[in-house]
Amino acid sequence: MLESLLVLGSTMPDLSVFQYSAVDNIFSMTVATMGAAAIFLFLSRSQVDPEYRPALAISGLVVTIACYHYFMIRHSWNDAYMLSDGGYVGTGAAFNDFYRYADWILTVPLLMVELVAVLRLQAAKATSLLTRLVIAAALMIALGYPGEVISDPEGWGTRVAWGVASSVPFFYILYVLWVELTKSLETQPPAARTLIEVCRLVLLITWAVYPIAYALGGTPEALAAKAGGEVGAGGVVGLQIGYAIADMAAKAGFGVLIYFIARAKSGKSVVPGATGEPVMAPA
Amino acid sequence: MLESLLVLGSTMPDLSVFQYSAVDNIFSMTVATMGAAAIFLFLSRSQVDPEYRPALAISGLVVTIACYHYFMIRHSWNDAYMLSDGGYVGTGAAFNDFYRYADWILTVPLLMVELVAVLRLQAAKATSLLTRLVIAAALMIALGYPGEVISDPEGWGTRVAWGVASSVPFFYILYVLWVELTKSLETQPPAARTLIEVCRLVLLITWAVYPIAYALGGTPEALAAKAGGEVGAGGVVGLQIGYAIADMAAKAGFGVLIYFIARAKSGKSVVPGATGEPVMAPA
Repeated sequence: MLESLLVLGSTMPDLSVFQYSAVDNIFSMTVATMGAAAIFLFLSRSQVDPEYRPALAISGLVVTIACYHYFMIRHSWNDAYMLSDGGYVGTGAAFNDFYRYADWILTVPLLMVELVAVLRLQAAKATSLLTRLVIAAALMIALGYPGEVISDPEGWGTRVAWGVASSVPFFYILYVLWVELTKSLETQPPAARTLIEVCRLVLLITWAVYPIAYALGGTPEALAAKAGGEVGAGGVVGLQIGYAIADMAAKAGFGVLIYFIARAKSGKSVVPGATGEPVMAPA
Repeated sequence: MLESLLVLGSTMPDLSVFQYSAVDNIFSMTVATMGAAAIFLFLSRSQVDPEYRPALAISGLVVTIACYHYFMIRHSWNDAYMLSDGGYVGTGAAFNDFYRYADWILTVPLLMVELVAVLRLQAAKATSLLTRLVIAAALMIALGYPGEVISDPEGWGTRVAWGVASSVPFFYILYVLWVELTKSLETQPPAARTLIEVCRLVLLITWAVYPIAYALGGTPEALAAKAGGEVGAGGVVGLQIGYAIADMAAKAGFGVLIYFIARAKSGKSVVPGATGEPVMAPA
């Protein structure tokens, strides 16, 4: 059982130069996007009131962690393939999908923290909310992974069972966030309200990608193809590009939204900065 | 169609040591220039009034992203060639031109943001202006790429069609920026006016390089040479050096101009610096 948890992707389908390069390039662009977002979020702490700086720091951490993982994912992709006869064939080295799960284990709970931090709910409420969200996020990822790595066509039922189990905390998180974001609208300044409504939508749309990708990657046909060493090239390419774009939106895009919410809620007065300098509130 | 989008440059012309090194060296110099500009722009945030700091942060991001991409472009250049018989011949690995497009996708919209941010227009006006500029920039790049990668001599007409389509948003952006910069002159302090006039000129001159390079790289002769596996060595070398110099001027040079404009508009009063020491406002 444990042995099978990390061998996902050891059979890589042959790819055309275009297919290989499309994935390679989207990984590189994701590294650039996440890294730039991290610098922006860290620098922008001084542009918001001190109480919103932790939210920006955490948002910066999320994209920093993602930048590192996409750098490693890209390396793993390069190692898994070699050029041969005008196309790309597997080298035998496994493409390490665990980087993405390691990333999610670290960043999904932090995404919950950055969102709750920027809403500035009452302390007791924030603690209770965060506890529930972080536990649910950990469960969601832990329950999804054993299903993700099943490559035996006989295991389709088991994969569906893990997927369903993982969906329970997934939908619980989306439900809690939707309800809480909607409730918080009343207490937010008007300038922040529209942004929080956008936030709700971005969450819903970007998060929807993950279960869809999970389901498409594990149909009985996909598993049978995997077992026969014929993983569909189109499926692999589509899955990797889809995850990368969803990650850019759900992490870098979401972080920039958190910055705009923090800006909209800041600036009612001149506040002293974290390092001792007076920071003018943005106009 | 899609298949052809990334194989540009897979046939690399033989180069002399001088030609290979000229491109290699200009890439290295661009990495150094962009990296230095990034550090300067990030550090200089504390030298300007707080409302101009986002403009410098964004300018710093642009050159950081460009620094990363030129580092990768240089690696790809090294991978695409090997020394043989006192000259350089292709290894079969494609020189990855997509890095440059990935760079433009990320940085051209940010260049619009840094310019609008330093002008400090009214909020409603800035939002409308930015929306139009960012959409036009995305269209310009998206429409240019399919033409850029056409290497079939029969495709010359199609390439021209993509080029013309891409030119519409290109000239729209230049027109809007020229008109807005000219209009903004009235509301800017005298010290900033000359700088903004320089800015207009720098934009016009550096941006002019891109369509010229695009046109020269796609003449029927150039396409025929490419199809016959005889990409003109002079063309490749000239194109890469031209793009690198234009990128240095349009990103690092432009960023430094943004800094001078921010300085000229700052400093109505003495502002304490980020590290606690009083920083004299620039005259």
